[in-house]
Amino acid sequence: MEARSLLRFLVLFLSIALVLIFTWVHLPSTPPNPSELLDCTTNSPWCTSKNRFQPKKPNLLKKSPKLTRHHNHASDKPHHPLDPLTIQEINELRSILTSHALFKSSGYALHSIELEEPEKPLVLKWKKGDPLLPRKATVVARVDGKSHVLTVHLGTREVTVHETSSHSGYPTMTIEDMTTATLAPLANADFNRTIIQRGVDLTDLACLPISTGWYGESEETRRLIKVQCYSMKGTANFYMRPIEGLTVLVDLDTKQVVEISDKGKNIPIPKSANTDYRYSAQELHQIINLFNPISIEQPKGPSFTIEDEHLVKWANWEFHLKPDARAGVIVSRAKVRDPDTGELRNVMYKGFTSELFVPYMDPTDAWYFKTYMDAGEYGFGLQAMALDPLNDCPRNAYYMDGVFVAADGTPYVRSNMICVFEKYAGDIGWRHSESPITGMEIREARPKVTLVVRMAASVANYDYIVDWEFQTDGLIRIKVGLSGILMVKGTTYDNINQISNQENLYGTLLSENVIGVIHDHYITFYLDMDIDGSDNSFVNVNIKKQQTSPGESPRKSYLKAIRNVAKTEKDAQIKLKLYDPSEFHVINPSKKTRVGNPVGYKVVPGGTAASMLDLDDPPQKRGAFTNNQIWVTPYNQTEQWAGGLFVYQSQGEDTLATWSERDRPIENKDIVLWYTLGFHHIPCQEDFPIMPTVSSSFDLKPVNFFESNPILRIPPNLEKDLPVCEPADSV
Amino acid sequence: MEARSLLRFLVLFLSIALVLIFTWVHLPSTPPNPSELLDCTTNSPWCTSKNRFQPKKPNLLKKSPKLTRHHNHASDKPHHPLDPLTIQEINELRSILTSHALFKSSGYALHSIELEEPEKPLVLKWKKGDPLLPRKATVVARVDGKSHVLTVHLGTREVTVHETSSHSGYPTMTIEDMTTATLAPLANADFNRTIIQRGVDLTDLACLPISTGWYGESEETRRLIKVQCYSMKGTANFYMRPIEGLTVLVDLDTKQVVEISDKGKNIPIPKSANTDYRYSAQELHQIINLFNPISIEQPKGPSFTIEDEHLVKWANWEFHLKPDARAGVIVSRAKVRDPDTGELRNVMYKGFTSELFVPYMDPTDAWYFKTYMDAGEYGFGLQAMALDPLNDCPRNAYYMDGVFVAADGTPYVRSNMICVFEKYAGDIGWRHSESPITGMEIREARPKVTLVVRMAASVANYDYIVDWEFQTDGLIRIKVGLSGILMVKGTTYDNINQISNQENLYGTLLSENVIGVIHDHYITFYLDMDIDGSDNSFVNVNIKKQQTSPGESPRKSYLKAIRNVAKTEKDAQIKLKLYDPSEFHVINPSKKTRVGNPVGYKVVPGGTAASMLDLDDPPQKRGAFTNNQIWVTPYNQTEQWAGGLFVYQSQGEDTLATWSERDRPIENKDIVLWYTLGFHHIPCQEDFPIMPTVSSSFDLKPVNFFESNPILRIPPNLEKDLPVCEPADSV
Repeated sequence: MEARSLLRFLVLFLSIALVLIFTWVHLPSTPPNPSELLDCTTNSPWCTSKNRFQPKKPNLLKKSPKLTRHHNHASDKPHHPLDPLTIQEINELRSILTSHALFKSSGYALHSIELEEPEKPLVLKWKKGDPLLPRKATVVARVDGKSHVLTVHLGTREVTVHETSSHSGYPTMTIEDMTTATLAPLANADFNRTIIQRGVDLTDLACLPISTGWYGESEETRRLIKVQCYSMKGTANFYMRPIEGLTVLVDLDTKQVVEISDKGKNIPIPKSANTDYRYSAQELHQIINLFNPISIEQPKGPSFTIEDEHLVKWANWEFHLKPDARAGVIVSRAKVRDPDTGELRNVMYKGFTSELFVPYMDPTDAWYFKTYMDAGEYGFGLQAMALDPLNDCPRNAYYMDGVFVAADGTPYVRSNMICVFEKYAGDIGWRHSESPITGMEIREARPKVTLVVRMAASVANYDYIVDWEFQTDGLIRIKVGLSGILMVKGTTYDNINQISNQENLYGTLLSENVIGVIHDHYITFYLDMDIDGSDNSFVNVNIKKQQTSPGESPRKSYLKAIRNVAKTEKDAQIKLKLYDPSEFHVINPSKKTRVGNPVGYKVVPGGTAASMLDLDDPPQKRGAFTNNQIWVTPYNQTEQWAGGLFVYQSQGEDTLATWSERDRPIENKDIVLWYTLGFHHIPCQEDFPIMPTVSSSFDLKPVNFFESNPILRIPPNLEKDLPVCEPADSV
Repeated sequence: MEARSLLRFLVLFLSIALVLIFTWVHLPSTPPNPSELLDCTTNSPWCTSKNRFQPKKPNLLKKSPKLTRHHNHASDKPHHPLDPLTIQEINELRSILTSHALFKSSGYALHSIELEEPEKPLVLKWKKGDPLLPRKATVVARVDGKSHVLTVHLGTREVTVHETSSHSGYPTMTIEDMTTATLAPLANADFNRTIIQRGVDLTDLACLPISTGWYGESEETRRLIKVQCYSMKGTANFYMRPIEGLTVLVDLDTKQVVEISDKGKNIPIPKSANTDYRYSAQELHQIINLFNPISIEQPKGPSFTIEDEHLVKWANWEFHLKPDARAGVIVSRAKVRDPDTGELRNVMYKGFTSELFVPYMDPTDAWYFKTYMDAGEYGFGLQAMALDPLNDCPRNAYYMDGVFVAADGTPYVRSNMICVFEKYAGDIGWRHSESPITGMEIREARPKVTLVVRMAASVANYDYIVDWEFQTDGLIRIKVGLSGILMVKGTTYDNINQISNQENLYGTLLSENVIGVIHDHYITFYLDMDIDGSDNSFVNVNIKKQQTSPGESPRKSYLKAIRNVAKTEKDAQIKLKLYDPSEFHVINPSKKTRVGNPVGYKVVPGGTAASMLDLDDPPQKRGAFTNNQIWVTPYNQTEQWAGGLFVYQSQGEDTLATWSERDRPIENKDIVLWYTLGFHHIPCQEDFPIMPTVSSSFDLKPVNFFESNPILRIPPNLEKDLPVCEPADSV
């Protein structure tokens, strides 16, 4: 930054801080106090946002010791080959990197530092008690405007710099990228003038960094972001108060404003009334108490243990669990115990949220580019904040922290990022009553108790709740809940009777001057199924109508299941069809049940949605991994991110769709199943000012994996075993 | 019955009982004791089945007084116009009927006695405190081989005999029909000889009454049923031991065997090993204890009340709830409180399971006719047995009894048929955390607590769990769970390697000599939505891809929501399509929100399946109500049963499909929404010998019904309010 603009920036920054304090203290006569300027964290949310991401200050939220454990991660050691990098290891890494030639430059940023998992055969062979496999890290760094991928051997301190791919795209933004981007416009006098002209006080400003996507234009050669702003006057829910039509293009590397577009001068900023969702912002008489206290109670404690911080053992399940800056949660080595043999059997080597794709359905200037890919652009895990005990997870939950790395290599702790709890919802595992027809007095039922692993990522306005739910019958349900706050559009209208039939709102009028814009959500899961071993096949069990021959039967038709084993990837590019249904099995062709069925798991879609954008629309090219609901690829350690490793501004040459087009053999191979869960979201007024959770799920379900019902022999609930509880205020 | 066959029957009956006791006491030398013959209820399930349905003996199961209330229904009085008939009313009805000319004949059976609900406008006008509307009953009776529908005015004792319809079909079977049908073959020496030839002791026999459907043959003129039998030797789960291929055609009116078909002489009866699912039948060392006690606890008690036995008031919901012999559960007058006005607003006038359709996919002699319609043929409520406290429903459940009527008009009580409970599953009602991008330290989340109404019908082998779940955000989720026991087919095979690729198994080999036959389940719901009043419209909000014009936008495409108001019934015959998606709204066109959106609810499908049988296949003609997933009809009090009033052996002239073909106007009318939830079921080994619950659901969800999120102002959970619990054994 040249001296003149640095000066201009500083002056501006101070002015803003001054006005801010001025507003905060409600004492117009108080002169600005320099110490308050330095400690504005307590004064304004927007100001806080500038201080929050000093990585030196570990992001530890206050925790209630009754509900969560304090854990000093400084002395964490890895115990399992898949354990994430520890604080010690990250510090060591940083020391290795800083002595490396590449980082002699002052202008570098570390975009990710993650464990480079050992090769799969080594992990499969590794047993507890064996020496830990050599620890390596994959580092993605930007140095002097260039992206690099490195492998760092922690033991040998050896650094391998990989050939940077010829593909387009940039690494996941750092948190520092995101926050500095939102501050950049403030250094621009034109911008500030525009804000003031729109009637917004600069101190009320809140801005969001919006990934630009890629639209085949000149922007290809630099790393760009679009910043849009809101007024937070009168509400913490600034998302409902857009300064509509104002878009600032910022260069992410130089932090300079490239272009300001303002197409919304005539659009008022929606009112703040009834937008604040915080409990503390409600008036007491408005609070609606609907029920008596209710809780899942387990006074004998949970039935699971977490060994060595990451190995979860519950009921008949065992799996490795870790937070991840990009994927959020990674479940590895999921195994279930066979009730007949007592053996732990492999089900899934690795499963995680690989990518999200969230295209908005408004082609106008300030909206067309909103086609988010939340994992690869923002870091799905980076955005997963501490869960709220008792409200995000029930009282009986255990919490797991994440250890992430700031752009300068400093490790920090994201507390309570994942919760693990046993769930009993009053559901039935299995049941049978003999009916009056037979009259046998049999009533047998078993309660369904499950184990839930949960995280919630807040990618700016939206909240994604991702649950991995393990059932004792061998089923894994993967559920995505959407809550949080809509991305809304300002409008001049305050009633739809002002709008002509011909006019396209691109959404629903939710409140005066507020449109909820139509959008889709796609969440693509990587599911490396290993059914009793790595070599598996994908079978499309197609349900087809059969006609009977004349005279064969009084029936004219029936349905038959026809098994088609996928030979190559294209056989496994699946679009779901209600009137051409199939079951989708991953089987082990070499392992059969006693009566000869191949052991397997099936993926069972639930309610979902499909992307219908043009295949050659730039966002759909980048999100081409949503062109099918199911794909199967041969295992390849480098193919984990459905939108490509470098998703930001990518052009879509390195997605699941391009890999799958190679049409590699997948029969009786180590294969990876990909499933995309989708939602069309036409907003409605109930989504204003914060959305009740909408969720959908899919299942991984054993199919001839067990010889018979694996929970046949679990006991029913008996009154004598249940806890004895009293109301809190009677104790 | 002529004297000779009566004698033959008695001799046979005694012989069976003797052998039975012989087996039971394990004392081959004990001589038969006549008093034991009379009290065989304790000796054999099959024997029990003969005694069970003496309607004189009210079917009261032993209840734990801690968990359920004992209620003396003898003095029940109706309080609400929709309250079901009471025992007193049924007794009065019987006295009215027996003095009626039609019933002077000795040969009559009452197939149903149900409240005839007052006309809808009268019910809508009625308020608590008003005098009760005149009480009427609809009676369906068979007299001397003819079906009659009568209206009986309880006050005036007036009886109106309705024109019996020209349609084919017979009323729902009585329980007596079903049980006598299964006994009829035993009076046939040929049958008994066949059983013994198949190596089955007559005392081990268990038989099921299987509705014959209709196949356009000579059977049209009499009421017929097919009986198939099993061996219960060595297991309570006789369903897993079919005497394959043996089908006895029985005349339901004369109780005579019409025809015996045996196509399975060479097929062995599968072994009993590992088929018994009862806890008491397991050996202790085999019991798998997977978890510590866990429970939903509410020590301050439930937050709902049930006024006058049927009016449920919970949180912001109020609805009328009653058991029904045909539908199972009927929810009426569902209203939700508006948080802004405090007003209770109408959502649904009436909702229930109208019909089920369960076609099996095997066209061979002993299977082709298995195309059950469980509500109209068997009575979905009649088959809903007492729920098992702590296992079918959680500890905090309240139980409701049903009052049903035997064929001779005697009322009896079906205890604990419905449960109602509050559910907290650790789920999130809404949430938002501010992300690191904005850095505002906000974490707000609200727990999701719901109210569940549950019943479980055991239609012979299968168990259907139907949940109506009410959420405070206004959503109603209707969920159907499938558990219980498969209908299986005997086979000579014990390994699939014995089977040539060409051979059609019609299912999956589940165990040695046991095939789980492929089948579908369709559950069709009647949903008389009344959104803020009766006159509503159905809107198909179609999501369509739009192409941008060249130069309009860097985007080539986006999705747009196009609203199409259905004018007539054919506009609302909907097949769901993943790539041509819509939202389906029921709106009140006369009532708008503040910003002008019509208030509405939408039906939100979840995972489902569609019937793909030929439209002119006889079972599909009868089940034509599954030809679409959604239908809308104008309200008509006589159109409530999707397969017709008389479904048994019907030919499909009186189904929802035929009503809808009339294409009546439905815009801004009192309309009824019909939704069909479907499952394709290819059995797998995990379903043997009893199935882990599989479930699917759909939602009725407010869409611009409220001005904004109705649960914005509920409080979060606080530690200080939660119960204090101890393990049972520490108290």
